[in-house]
Amino acid sequence: MRSSDTTETKQLVDFSTVFWHGADLSKLKMHLIDNIDLISAVPERSAETISRLLSRRIEVREDEVLVTSGSTGAIHLIAKRTAGANSLVISPTHQEFKVALARNGHQVTEIDSCVDITKLPLEGIQYCWLCTPNISDGRLWSRTSLLTLFKENPNVTFIVDISMAAFVIEETLKPSDIKNHKNLILVSSFSKAYNVPGMRVGYVVARKNIIAELRESSTPCNISAFAVEAIRFILIHPAQFTLPARKWHRSATELKARLSAIDGLEILPSSTAFFVVRLLDMDAVKLNEYLMNDCGMKVAVCTDGLELKPNEFRVNALDNESNRALADAIATWMSNR
Amino acid sequence: MRSSDTTETKQLVDFSTVFWHGADLSKLKMHLIDNIDLISAVPERSAETISRLLSRRIEVREDEVLVTSGSTGAIHLIAKRTAGANSLVISPTHQEFKVALARNGHQVTEIDSCVDITKLPLEGIQYCWLCTPNISDGRLWSRTSLLTLFKENPNVTFIVDISMAAFVIEETLKPSDIKNHKNLILVSSFSKAYNVPGMRVGYVVARKNIIAELRESSTPCNISAFAVEAIRFILIHPAQFTLPARKWHRSATELKARLSAIDGLEILPSSTAFFVVRLLDMDAVKLNEYLMNDCGMKVAVCTDGLELKPNEFRVNALDNESNRALADAIATWMSNR
Repeated sequence: MRSSDTTETKQLVDFSTVFWHGADLSKLKMHLIDNIDLISAVPERSAETISRLLSRRIEVREDEVLVTSGSTGAIHLIAKRTAGANSLVISPTHQEFKVALARNGHQVTEIDSCVDITKLPLEGIQYCWLCTPNISDGRLWSRTSLLTLFKENPNVTFIVDISMAAFVIEETLKPSDIKNHKNLILVSSFSKAYNVPGMRVGYVVARKNIIAELRESSTPCNISAFAVEAIRFILIHPAQFTLPARKWHRSATELKARLSAIDGLEILPSSTAFFVVRLLDMDAVKLNEYLMNDCGMKVAVCTDGLELKPNEFRVNALDNESNRALADAIATWMSNR
Repeated sequence: MRSSDTTETKQLVDFSTVFWHGADLSKLKMHLIDNIDLISAVPERSAETISRLLSRRIEVREDEVLVTSGSTGAIHLIAKRTAGANSLVISPTHQEFKVALARNGHQVTEIDSCVDITKLPLEGIQYCWLCTPNISDGRLWSRTSLLTLFKENPNVTFIVDISMAAFVIEETLKPSDIKNHKNLILVSSFSKAYNVPGMRVGYVVARKNIIAELRESSTPCNISAFAVEAIRFILIHPAQFTLPARKWHRSATELKARLSAIDGLEILPSSTAFFVVRLLDMDAVKLNEYLMNDCGMKVAVCTDGLELKPNEFRVNALDNESNRALADAIATWMSNR
């Protein structure tokens, strides 16, 4: 925690995450400081306070929500409950899908990319795992095509991670979509949109019978009273935590324009303010080493446990000044190769 | 969280817990306030910082420790990994044992009480679940008899919750006992001895192969960076957190003496500063209602989800002034029946 290398990592300007870095957490932090005595409070058995407030916000019933230890906890819980099933994943995708499916003995079919989501090879598949917008590259499947997919394949259950739904401008899946699609299990999280990954609060939204089953496997009392209070504060002060997606996208557009001006790289399509850049003939891991060692910056590369190719990196747009510095640093490195 | 009834409960002088109420957490709280930014920190995958520091402290190897979401998380994890087995529990015991065993389809044999722990009916039993000192009543099995039990029954695995080991004066089981007993799985927690149940940090200590198996079922990243920092602080400042067991016991002895002077009740044997009191002809739930409504105090009764009889209550000795007030209140209530 306090080792020197960790401290150095913290000081880097970090383009490698998928968190909404601009969240203003000052009032939340003040509130938590006022409530520091909660470290001695016995937790609720199933984070009922969060389920109650959240279900109202996302317009589902309280028994259609299960609070979990981050979206990671949600994914592992579902994979465990469906252990040994035939599952389909579309790569690149959420690394945690693959970890959880492997751990729980799923028979995994992996398809490498997919233009038409409504024509997936679902013969014999029981569960299909998607992340939209996709954590790997920011790609989004359209709401209409996804709803068609769910409707046309009633015998397949779709587990869809929508943790980053607030990151896109387009209309995407909503928690209340479970009402019309009983084969839909949605996974989400407070970590990314509110920049509180340290609180470990995610959730599953699905029909009542599915939630009841998952609850049976969920560890009681695993959300601390402190984390419950943090999320309660976020939920009762929504205006403080609105994510300005358009502003964030404008800064991404500017960053993309600067990067496009550099020879020897290609920007892959994305619906989020983070996106993948492919180097045409060079090693992204080496570029990242240069950025970390010489420029005090960091992007995400394959060695960070992401499904990227060695010549690809993922970058999350920060403020314009940082973005400019990044584009300049990349241009310098590229011109010296 | 903020509903009026919760607020009222908080203001009660609470004799119903099994936490070491006297823990001085002021420096820990200051430290956490200084580190409030950790709410935005990505957690370690398996709380490695805690495993490393803790394993040194308790003199086992790092791969013999698994950090869990409280002792509750540890118990559910073990029950899940051994689902469907033949298990023995000795009642009264940790309620969470029964919840976890029922959830995971164990065939549970329950024996009502046990004078000689070395003569348990273990024929056909695969797992035996114990809590010592016992959370229900503070009873302790002697270290010698337990070690004999483990040795004489090599085909039974013993899961022993020692979360309250620091509460007793007598010698009890130690984490390093796993070295000589490969059929021993110890469960413990920081919540009770350090009064930080809000942090949700417990752990399992067992031989390497058992820990590796449990780790496979454990949710990654489920201990927040904030909780890791709290426990790190506790582990590197042990002197600040020493539990003064003898002092606590003296205050329990005084409380027991005062209660003994009251007609119509019996104090059950206990090795901890909390103990069970049996009312000879009266309802402990009614007594507790009187204490809560008229005296601003609370003891633990059967309706709190504990394995107590309707005429029994559990009381945790607090400071002498509070203890005196409790004894006086009970005497008043008893004399008015």
